[in-house]
Amino acid sequence: MKKNIEEKLKELKDPSMFIGVQGDGIISFGSGQPDLEPPKEVYDILSAGSLKEHRYGLLQGTEKLRNALSKEYPGSDAENFVITNGASEALDLTLRAIGKIGDKILVHKPYYYSYKPLIEMNYLVPVFTETKEGKINFDDFAEKVKSCKAVLINSPCNPTGRIQEIDTLKKIEKLTKDSNKILISDEVYKDLIYERENYFLSGPHVVTINSFSKTYGMCGFRVGYLYSNDKKIVDKTIELKTHTSMNTSLIAQEMAYAALQAPKSYIADGLKIWKERRDITYQGLLDLGLEVKKPEGAFYVLPKIKEPRKAVRELFTKHRIITYLGEWFGAPDRIRLIYALDKEKIEEGLERIKKYLKSA
Amino acid sequence: MKKNIEEKLKELKDPSMFIGVQGDGIISFGSGQPDLEPPKEVYDILSAGSLKEHRYGLLQGTEKLRNALSKEYPGSDAENFVITNGASEALDLTLRAIGKIGDKILVHKPYYYSYKPLIEMNYLVPVFTETKEGKINFDDFAEKVKSCKAVLINSPCNPTGRIQEIDTLKKIEKLTKDSNKILISDEVYKDLIYERENYFLSGPHVVTINSFSKTYGMCGFRVGYLYSNDKKIVDKTIELKTHTSMNTSLIAQEMAYAALQAPKSYIADGLKIWKERRDITYQGLLDLGLEVKKPEGAFYVLPKIKEPRKAVRELFTKHRIITYLGEWFGAPDRIRLIYALDKEKIEEGLERIKKYLKSA
Repeated sequence: MKKNIEEKLKELKDPSMFIGVQGDGIISFGSGQPDLEPPKEVYDILSAGSLKEHRYGLLQGTEKLRNALSKEYPGSDAENFVITNGASEALDLTLRAIGKIGDKILVHKPYYYSYKPLIEMNYLVPVFTETKEGKINFDDFAEKVKSCKAVLINSPCNPTGRIQEIDTLKKIEKLTKDSNKILISDEVYKDLIYERENYFLSGPHVVTINSFSKTYGMCGFRVGYLYSNDKKIVDKTIELKTHTSMNTSLIAQEMAYAALQAPKSYIADGLKIWKERRDITYQGLLDLGLEVKKPEGAFYVLPKIKEPRKAVRELFTKHRIITYLGEWFGAPDRIRLIYALDKEKIEEGLERIKKYLKSA
Repeated sequence: MKKNIEEKLKELKDPSMFIGVQGDGIISFGSGQPDLEPPKEVYDILSAGSLKEHRYGLLQGTEKLRNALSKEYPGSDAENFVITNGASEALDLTLRAIGKIGDKILVHKPYYYSYKPLIEMNYLVPVFTETKEGKINFDDFAEKVKSCKAVLINSPCNPTGRIQEIDTLKKIEKLTKDSNKILISDEVYKDLIYERENYFLSGPHVVTINSFSKTYGMCGFRVGYLYSNDKKIVDKTIELKTHTSMNTSLIAQEMAYAALQAPKSYIADGLKIWKERRDITYQGLLDLGLEVKKPEGAFYVLPKIKEPRKAVRELFTKHRIITYLGEWFGAPDRIRLIYALDKEKIEEGLERIKKYLKSA
């Protein structure tokens, strides 16, 4: 058990308190990452023993990987990609490249945990638009975007698991283009949508953020990228990365390249598993009487719960379940669960939540 | 040949123009990285096929690697290290953790190319102290440090190859401690000193920056770290890294761990090779009549040359030699050469410089 967790449970400051907490029959609905293994190609390339280039690579990322990525984005060019240390670095570099002190960035709420600190640590100002059942209200969006330099869209969304309507996305795409705003689209869950194909936000003003972490189960290896048709933004992020981290680890880039060589059935097979887990989790939470919206993508669900801080504490101390506080994601009346667990574990976890709710 | 290099040669804006430029009989005294291979242990661990942990790792870095590092720093604790994407990220995170807008950072000149942009992109202000023959003038240092929040020391120094006198380092250590300044010590070349043992700057106010890139020839794999006894700085950098890049690539951390398991003779054997190359290069440049100080560490040399911009251009276009403009390092009357080449290549390169000097 992690040191001082009792102390941290009082404060419930951020998710880091739960990182590395395991064993003792704990069921974790916590850390936002797949349990599914990466494609075997990812490991095969390591044991092949051919990865001997130990010197600096191109700062933008290897040509091999960028060429392979450009095939995934029809009409794109390898020159428009920058390979980064996960989507996190892609987003940080983008914000550093486009923002000046005090610039406003529009974010829909609830939002991914890191958005607010990333914006603020770059001396930018987050502006929030509320969502209803996870869906953006376009009128509110249109009003608030006026004062903003850029917009950050995350569909499918962490923590809601909801996707934005295609009609809304098209309107956002057009409005931001017409009003000269930068549209940052964090699409790390684009391959995990249960209801429809992904709608790819595009245009000369779009910066797409993506990663190998979620689609290929490669969180720990840290390979992400940004894609933009705006040469100035691409060049600026490369220039910044020259000083902040240089090339993304060559060995990790090779693994990412190998992942792209895996049969596409890898993604489809994973999606089937996720959908089954989604159904069990969603129905289970409904059956417990919780107010919850059906996840349409990603692998999160964000039920409403009474006294969320007490819930997160007692679910952990009395029922050995890790959940995340909705407050960390801008949803103070909720908790976030990830269903990156075998069916049996999910069912066991739901049973424990039932016990908690009865006793609460 | 890289696109548009002729265009870039006119401007000579930064070293990135030469990255990836090779072949055509080019001899590169350019990119600052070892040509020597990493220890074989680094690759053995990949082919062993045991690296299957694909999920997020501890944000601070794996316990295994931090424990191994703490043995390299007597009296240290694994809790005091943060593993990063190279020394670059360690420095960027440190600056982000300690600095507020407008804070001044004292840097000795000539300086590593990235220091100025890193300081400035974090809205901090670089203050420079000139050196004489690469050595810090302590009186000037003591005067200028008064208005600064932190100091950045780099001994051995890129681009001069010079080390600071132990007496000076001790005085800096004491003055910064007594006057409550943060002392950032970039010691990435600490294992590459020809003249004496490294003097390790230490104290409660010190942040040591280091990496596996130079000592172990692992630039492309991107593993560095910071070490500090100031728990607040350590915690703050971890918090920032949670949002900016998460854990450093697990596979790269495993390779770094493997490097630490290699026999220590790896480093000693490398140092012999570097010393021989240093001697040839230094004597060669003296024989050409250039004003140059003897490198005491690292693998750079910074001769004075007439019309440096013309020299860098013509050495490349007419003699197929890559050198870096001293101006990029705050030394406008000089050029930088790295001797990360076989003896024969160094001698051939010196011959070509001779031809250039005759024709100039």
